[in-house]
Amino acid sequence: MNAIEPRTDLQDEASLQLDANGKLRHLLTLKGLDKGLLIDMLDDAEGYLTAPGSQPARSRVLAGRTVANLFFEASTRTRASFDLAGKRLGADVLNLDVNTSSRKKGESILDTIYTLEAMQVDVMVVRDASAGVPAYIARHVLDHVSILNAGESDVSHPTQGLLDVLTIRQHKDSFENLAVAIVGDIRHSRVAMSTSQALTTLGVGELRLISPAVLAPDPESVPGAIISDNLKEGIRDADVVMALRIQRERIGNLDGIPGIDEYFANFGISHESMMHAKPDAIVMHPGPMNRGIEIEGSLADGPRSVITRQVTNGVAVRMAVLDRVGKTMAAR
Amino acid sequence: MNAIEPRTDLQDEASLQLDANGKLRHLLTLKGLDKGLLIDMLDDAEGYLTAPGSQPARSRVLAGRTVANLFFEASTRTRASFDLAGKRLGADVLNLDVNTSSRKKGESILDTIYTLEAMQVDVMVVRDASAGVPAYIARHVLDHVSILNAGESDVSHPTQGLLDVLTIRQHKDSFENLAVAIVGDIRHSRVAMSTSQALTTLGVGELRLISPAVLAPDPESVPGAIISDNLKEGIRDADVVMALRIQRERIGNLDGIPGIDEYFANFGISHESMMHAKPDAIVMHPGPMNRGIEIEGSLADGPRSVITRQVTNGVAVRMAVLDRVGKTMAAR
Amino acid sequence: MNAIEPRTDLQDEASLQLDANGKLRHLLTLKGLDKGLLIDMLDDAEGYLTAPGSQPARSRVLAGRTVANLFFEASTRTRASFDLAGKRLGADVLNLDVNTSSRKKGESILDTIYTLEAMQVDVMVVRDASAGVPAYIARHVLDHVSILNAGESDVSHPTQGLLDVLTIRQHKDSFENLAVAIVGDIRHSRVAMSTSQALTTLGVGELRLISPAVLAPDPESVPGAIISDNLKEGIRDADVVMALRIQRERIGNLDGIPGIDEYFANFGISHESMMHAKPDAIVMHPGPMNRGIEIEGSLADGPRSVITRQVTNGVAVRMAVLDRVGKTMAAR
Repeated sequence: MNAIEPRTDLQDEASLQLDANGKLRHLLTLKGLDKGLLIDMLDDAEGYLTAPGSQPARSRVLAGRTVANLFFEASTRTRASFDLAGKRLGADVLNLDVNTSSRKKGESILDTIYTLEAMQVDVMVVRDASAGVPAYIARHVLDHVSILNAGESDVSHPTQGLLDVLTIRQHKDSFENLAVAIVGDIRHSRVAMSTSQALTTLGVGELRLISPAVLAPDPESVPGAIISDNLKEGIRDADVVMALRIQRERIGNLDGIPGIDEYFANFGISHESMMHAKPDAIVMHPGPMNRGIEIEGSLADGPRSVITRQVTNGVAVRMAVLDRVGKTMAAR
Repeated sequence: MNAIEPRTDLQDEASLQLDANGKLRHLLTLKGLDKGLLIDMLDDAEGYLTAPGSQPARSRVLAGRTVANLFFEASTRTRASFDLAGKRLGADVLNLDVNTSSRKKGESILDTIYTLEAMQVDVMVVRDASAGVPAYIARHVLDHVSILNAGESDVSHPTQGLLDVLTIRQHKDSFENLAVAIVGDIRHSRVAMSTSQALTTLGVGELRLISPAVLAPDPESVPGAIISDNLKEGIRDADVVMALRIQRERIGNLDGIPGIDEYFANFGISHESMMHAKPDAIVMHPGPMNRGIEIEGSLADGPRSVITRQVTNGVAVRMAVLDRVGKTMAAR
Repeated sequence: MNAIEPRTDLQDEASLQLDANGKLRHLLTLKGLDKGLLIDMLDDAEGYLTAPGSQPARSRVLAGRTVANLFFEASTRTRASFDLAGKRLGADVLNLDVNTSSRKKGESILDTIYTLEAMQVDVMVVRDASAGVPAYIARHVLDHVSILNAGESDVSHPTQGLLDVLTIRQHKDSFENLAVAIVGDIRHSRVAMSTSQALTTLGVGELRLISPAVLAPDPESVPGAIISDNLKEGIRDADVVMALRIQRERIGNLDGIPGIDEYFANFGISHESMMHAKPDAIVMHPGPMNRGIEIEGSLADGPRSVITRQVTNGVAVRMAVLDRVGKTMAAR
C-alpha cells in the first residue's frame, strides 16, 4: 500500500460527504453531519421496514447500478447486510474478499479502487482496519462514485450509528429526555464513536460512556459525554443501555480485570446490573455478542432486548443510504 | 458455540419438519417422512428437469425471497447446486462462508441464525459437521423461516437421498422389485443414511449395505437392511450399485485393508465387480469421486453410470424443495 | 488431478475453438484465430462501451444462461471483470473458489467440470496455473458448453490480449505503422504471449519484447518479434509501451539485477525512459502494478497512461465474448 496521506480534520471529512448541492454523495462519518439530513435518512429507513414475518421491502431504484463490497477486514453481518440491501434495490452486487487476492499481490488500495471505478462500479462499500482509508479513497475517486464506510479502524462505523439511533427512536419518545449508556471497550469501538456522534447531533439528554479506565475514550473525541468507570452509577436511570463487544484477548491485560468473570461482574450488562436502569430501559448490542462476557445471554434474548431489531434496521438503513447516494448520482 | 441440546428422537425431528397443516416447512431428515410427500417431491423435481443440452427450468416463484447458504463445512457441489436452484427460482441468494468470519469471532450458531432471521432471510440452507445442528436451529427459528439440511455430520443429507431415489426411479420400474447395494464407508456416510431411509419408505425390495466390517453401520440405524462385508455376494444380481466416497486417510487404518489397492480389490466398484450385478444394473456415486479407489474411472464414465444424472437431478430436487417450502410460507 | 494429456499443437487448439460452422464456441488462445473474427470481437466490444461516468451497457442476451467462474488460481480483477460482464448480460453467475474445496478433496478437474455441466452451466471461465488445462477441458465438455480461458500458466490470457489491442486501436490509427514495445518479465507472461499474438494477427508494424536476458522469451514462441535486453533501444520511437508486472521475489535472482532499484533503472517504464518513445506514445500495464518497480507511479496516473481504459475495455471485451459464445450456443 502506498503511504496514506495524513488525515485532515474531521470537519473536512464531513463536508467531503456532500456534493456541491449539499446532497449526500459519500457516507464516511456521522460527525458533523447535518441534523436534518440525519433525520431524513432515518425517515427513509423507516420506509424500508416491513411487518415482522412479511417479505422485505424491495424496489428497482438501483437497477443498472453496481455495488462493490470491498472488505479489507473479515465481516459476516455487515457484509451480508449491505449485500442484501443492494440486491433488494436491484443493484448488481460484487463481493470482493480483498485479503486473499489483490493485497497478497501487493497492489495499492488506490489501484484496486481505480480498477473498480474503471469497471463502472457506482458504490464502493469499504471496511478497513486503518483510520482514514474511506476518506482517503473518497478524495481520489471520480465524481460519479460513492464511498460508504462500513467500518474504519476504531474511528467510525456510520451505518451502525444510524441503525442504533433509529432503533432508539422506535422505542423512545424524544432524544432530549433520554439518558443513553454505552458500556464496554469504548476506546477501541468505532460503534461507540459513530453512535455517540449521532446521539449528540440528535440532542440526546445524557450520553454516558462506561468502561474500565484503561478502555476509556479520549474525552476530546466525545465532547459532552460523561465518562465513567463505574457501571452502577453509569447505568442509573438510563433509558437505553448498549453493551459493546470486547475482544477476549484484551481482558487478561486490563488493570484490575484479571479474567472474564471479573469483567462480567464489573462491566457485564445483566439482569442484575439492569436493575439500576429505568424499568423500561432497552438493551442493545451491535453484535457479534460474547454471551456471558459483556452481556448476559438470557437478557439478550429477553423482552428488553432490541438486538435483533437493530439487525433488521441495519438492512433498512443501508437501503436508505444506497438509495440516497444513488439519487445523488442520478441528479448529477 | 453454546452447548447443543441432546438430540431428541428422530420421529420428533420428522414431525418438526411439518407445519400445523402437514405442509413441509423444514427438510431435516428423510426418516419418518410420509411416503406420499416424498413421492410428491420427486414428481415436483421431475417438473424442473429439461432436455439435455437445453436451458434449465426457471421460474420466479421465489422472487422477493432470500435464501442463505450457511455452510459451516466446505462444499463446492452442494453449495453450487443450492445456489443455482435458488437463483433459477428468482430468489436472492446469500452465500456465507462462516468458517472464516463469525465463528472466528466466537459468535454462537444461534446468534448467526437470529441475525439472518432479522435480515428477513426466508430459507437457511445449513451444512454442519455436528449431529443435530439443523434440527437445533429449526427448533429456534421464527415461524416464517425454513431450514434445509445440506449435510449433517454422518447422520443425514436429505436432498442427496431424494436425488438418489429420483435417479433410481428414472431408470427402474418399481422399487418393490429392486435390489439396491450401497458400497463403501457406510458408517461415516450421511448419504448412505438418507438414501437408505428414502428407499425404505419407498418399499425397496432389498437394501444391502456393504463395507469392511469396521465401517459397517449400527444395524439399528438401518432396520431391514442386509449388512455385509462381502462385495461379491452383496452385489449379486443387484439392480443398482452405489459406491460411496472413502476418505483416503482412513484406508491404512482399516483391518485387513493396508492400502488403496486392497480397498479397490475388495470394495471397489469396477467392471469386474459389476459382473456380479444384473446386466442392466446402474452405477451411482454421490461425488466427489476417488477414481481408482472406490470406483473404477472408466466405469464412472461408461454407459452404466448415472452419476452426472444424479447431479442434474440434484438441482431439480433442490428447486422442488425450495419451491415447496416457499409455498408453505406463502400459505401461512 | 488425473494426468493431463500432452498438449497437442497450437493450431489444433485454435481450430478447437470454432464449431462446425466456424463460429466461436470456446476462447482458448488468440494464436491462429482468424483476423476477421478478431476484429469482429473488437467491434462488438466497442458496442458495450458507454461514456465515462454513465451507466454501463446492459442487456438480457444471456438471461437464463449460467456462467461459472472456475478460478483454480486467485484473482480479483479478472474474476470481477467476468462476474460483472456476465451479470450485465443477465446471466446467473456462479463463483467457485476451487482451491478451498473440491481440490482439497482430491476431485479431478474433469469431475468438477462434469459436475458443472450436469448442473447446466453454459459457460465455464477457467483460470489455472497449468499449461493446457483450458484446452484439455474444452476437449471433454459436451457440445453445448463453452470454455473461456481466463489465464493459463505462462501461456495464454486471450481476453487480456483482446482488451490490449482494443485499447491500442482506440488510440492509434492503424496497426501496420505501429511500433509496440512490451517490457518486463516476458518469459513468464501469459499477457505478453496473448497480446503479441493478437498484434501479429492484426499486422503490427514492429513488435519489440524487452526484458533482462534471463527473462527473454523463447524466440520460436513469438515469431517476428524483436527480442532485446536494452530498454532504451527497445523503446525508441515506440508508439505503445506496455510494462508487465514482475514478481518481486524474482528480482534478486536475476543476472545483473541485484535489487529493485537496478530493475527500475534498467527496465522500469518512467518519465525518463519514455523520453525515448514517440511524444504521443501511450503507456499500458495489465495490472496489478508494482509502482516504483516496473512502472513509475506518476506515469501510470498521468495523461499518457491508458491503464484504467484497459480495465474498462476488459469488461466490454468479456461481454462481447460471452455474448458471442451465447449466440453460437443458441444457433446450434
